[in-house]
Amino acid sequence: MRMSRYFLPTLKEDPSEAQIVSHRLMLRAGMIRQSSAGIYSWLPLGLKVLRKVEAIVREEQDAAGCQELLMPTIQPAEIWQESGRYDDYGAEMLRIRDRHDRDMLFGPTNEEMITEIVRAHIRSYKDLPKNLYHIQWKFRDEVRPRFGIMRGREFLMKDAYSFDLTYEDARATYNRMFVAYLRTYARMGLKAIPMAADTGPIGGDLSHEFIILADTGESEVFCHKDLLEIDVLGESVDYDSDLQPVVDRWTNMYAATDEKHDPAEAAKLGDNLIKARGIEVGHIFYFGTKYSKAMNASVVGPDGDQVFPEMGSYGIGVSRLVGGLIEAFHDENGIVWPEAVAPFGAGIINLKSGDEACDTVSADLYAKLQAAGCDPIYDDRDVRAGAKFADMDLIGIPWQIVVGPRGVKNGVVEFKNRASGEREEISAESAMARLTA
Amino acid sequence: MRMSRYFLPTLKEDPSEAQIVSHRLMLRAGMIRQSSAGIYSWLPLGLKVLRKVEAIVREEQDAAGCQELLMPTIQPAEIWQESGRYDDYGAEMLRIRDRHDRDMLFGPTNEEMITEIVRAHIRSYKDLPKNLYHIQWKFRDEVRPRFGIMRGREFLMKDAYSFDLTYEDARATYNRMFVAYLRTYARMGLKAIPMAADTGPIGGDLSHEFIILADTGESEVFCHKDLLEIDVLGESVDYDSDLQPVVDRWTNMYAATDEKHDPAEAAKLGDNLIKARGIEVGHIFYFGTKYSKAMNASVVGPDGDQVFPEMGSYGIGVSRLVGGLIEAFHDENGIVWPEAVAPFGAGIINLKSGDEACDTVSADLYAKLQAAGCDPIYDDRDVRAGAKFADMDLIGIPWQIVVGPRGVKNGVVEFKNRASGEREEISAESAMARLTA
Repeated sequence: MRMSRYFLPTLKEDPSEAQIVSHRLMLRAGMIRQSSAGIYSWLPLGLKVLRKVEAIVREEQDAAGCQELLMPTIQPAEIWQESGRYDDYGAEMLRIRDRHDRDMLFGPTNEEMITEIVRAHIRSYKDLPKNLYHIQWKFRDEVRPRFGIMRGREFLMKDAYSFDLTYEDARATYNRMFVAYLRTYARMGLKAIPMAADTGPIGGDLSHEFIILADTGESEVFCHKDLLEIDVLGESVDYDSDLQPVVDRWTNMYAATDEKHDPAEAAKLGDNLIKARGIEVGHIFYFGTKYSKAMNASVVGPDGDQVFPEMGSYGIGVSRLVGGLIEAFHDENGIVWPEAVAPFGAGIINLKSGDEACDTVSADLYAKLQAAGCDPIYDDRDVRAGAKFADMDLIGIPWQIVVGPRGVKNGVVEFKNRASGEREEISAESAMARLTA
Repeated sequence: MRMSRYFLPTLKEDPSEAQIVSHRLMLRAGMIRQSSAGIYSWLPLGLKVLRKVEAIVREEQDAAGCQELLMPTIQPAEIWQESGRYDDYGAEMLRIRDRHDRDMLFGPTNEEMITEIVRAHIRSYKDLPKNLYHIQWKFRDEVRPRFGIMRGREFLMKDAYSFDLTYEDARATYNRMFVAYLRTYARMGLKAIPMAADTGPIGGDLSHEFIILADTGESEVFCHKDLLEIDVLGESVDYDSDLQPVVDRWTNMYAATDEKHDPAEAAKLGDNLIKARGIEVGHIFYFGTKYSKAMNASVVGPDGDQVFPEMGSYGIGVSRLVGGLIEAFHDENGIVWPEAVAPFGAGIINLKSGDEACDTVSADLYAKLQAAGCDPIYDDRDVRAGAKFADMDLIGIPWQIVVGPRGVKNGVVEFKNRASGEREEISAESAMARLTA
């Protein structure tokens, strides 16, 4: 993408309404624009990152044996009345009356709707297990939306729902999702720690939150320091095997959110205890037959009797993760995207747009990186060099190639790593080779 | 995907509520499930097709120089009050009051919101032109939703909005979108005819509908028969060139919907006039400064004066297209997907699941086709052969490979083309080669 054409409305000044760094940087980098309290448009740069995060979430759900479908945003009130949650949910549920005076709502979650689908279509234990997910916009009418997309009202969530015949099968499914979640965050470069959690309005008796660590995190968390050392992606996972040992490795060590923190228990860890700031980016639940019973979604079991499937649900805040990533990866100059979610693979800065030699080298690099699938962004604007450096740092492209008149004369460009700040003078060919290796 | 695991709730009987073939076949093929009137879940098979259609739409928008962003579903009433459309829109607009008693709505279209974004961020003519699109769920509270996803209430639309400095630039943008639309439909194997249209509530004075031809189409259309012969994809398009001659080639020949049909004019065509059934799948508008003026979205022009950008908007009904494709491509046995949008690249039918030789050949083909990126679906279920044939035809996979005991003994499989019904006995290796050529 040529920056001269790109809709990238960066801001020089910190917007006064933003209280946390991710909100501030998303506004400054032209990633989002608020349309009303807690409701945002994702501008082109923001959407690119959102889609990359979404793609990683999807790949890991698919790898774990989940199947994607897509439920609508607008739900009928009836199914929530059946489950008994329609009145419980309170003012956070956006209630709507349609032109025929039917009570509808903008879905905050989908346990009822998926149970209704399974009830209609799955009649026999032979059709189990099923683990179905969708990635869809949800709405929670927060009384005080804040922190940008971190606590917005309309947000993108991946939510999966599992249906198993037995408790043991359901636990195995829970373990698969536990591992899939760890892999999802690790692929984005995040350290995520699963922590035992309350089940809240979803219900059930087994639940973990996944907390990513970031200095600017919203809450205090406590855990054994060895949890930070586990190499999640070090070995491939076999989802057909028993994953309990993997889960045990995580859950046998102390890890607790502020609410669940037990100082006496934690004190036993001595020097192994670490205290950090955390951001919740996922939550998984096993809740047995709570919804299948309430909504009478039974199947015919092996013995011909009616069996209520054992269920779980598994959420990842996809849009929230974009904010979480920025909280974890930024410096005083802006965002520092991990390569896996970076909106562009490389940024080319032409220090002297209009200079024939600089234009030629830059355009050539741009074309070659495009052809190689590196998806570069090329700052070809007619603005001063300082503004170009600042914008490229602000939007956090992992690798920058700076093309200036002096270097071009000497056959070199400057190759800069955004994260470390290291710069090298190398040939344009070497820069290409590094980025496409 | 192994069909024994896939959530694919096909129906043997025609559902009584479906009046048109696409609705009937989408229900029977387990593509969708209605959750309330005009609101559907997209089950895994349906979602796969929807995403393929969406991807083609996206690629052609990007190729034409559009930039993708994503606006939220919920909009504030204020911007519609600014444009004057809040009261005009009537009962089709789903109006919502949030917990703080603010008037909101579920967006049926986004002229106001995109104009607000551009007003906030684009200040100079130097930042024009811009052509911004999103692919987002919309809601129109139809009084009588029907025909499945063809006239639903919650539907997926691609809508683009262009901003140009001059009328001439805006017309050039309109032409680019005109051509991008033709390419989009042609890539899906559809014959789409642009027809001059009324502008309706969007406003403006230049507009075309894109109508695809299908025997079961919703309305009667009339056009010169040579329009069906134009080879849209025959030559690549240069979006930087003047596309007026391409547009003229289409608009110089007679083409009209029932509403705009002029029998006297049409009669002049003699034998060249054809009468067909059509389905509207796209609509493009040029409407000048209607919204930029109403919402005071001006830029500083070249002479330092305030200029109101010339705008257009361009919609494609993405979810509707899935229904349109089925209306155009089906037979008495089910759907006949064009390869570009088929949910799976090939279907493997194991005629005798449990037979070691059949299982081995089928599983081997399945693994190899997966590795080759062909995305096969493998019917490994323990059901009778007739049911497998019927389901594979119903879901419309373009190529079927039938593995039976007799063939396996002779070293052959049956290779079937879903569209033509042609069958050949060839080796499994030849079948592989045909599918991965």
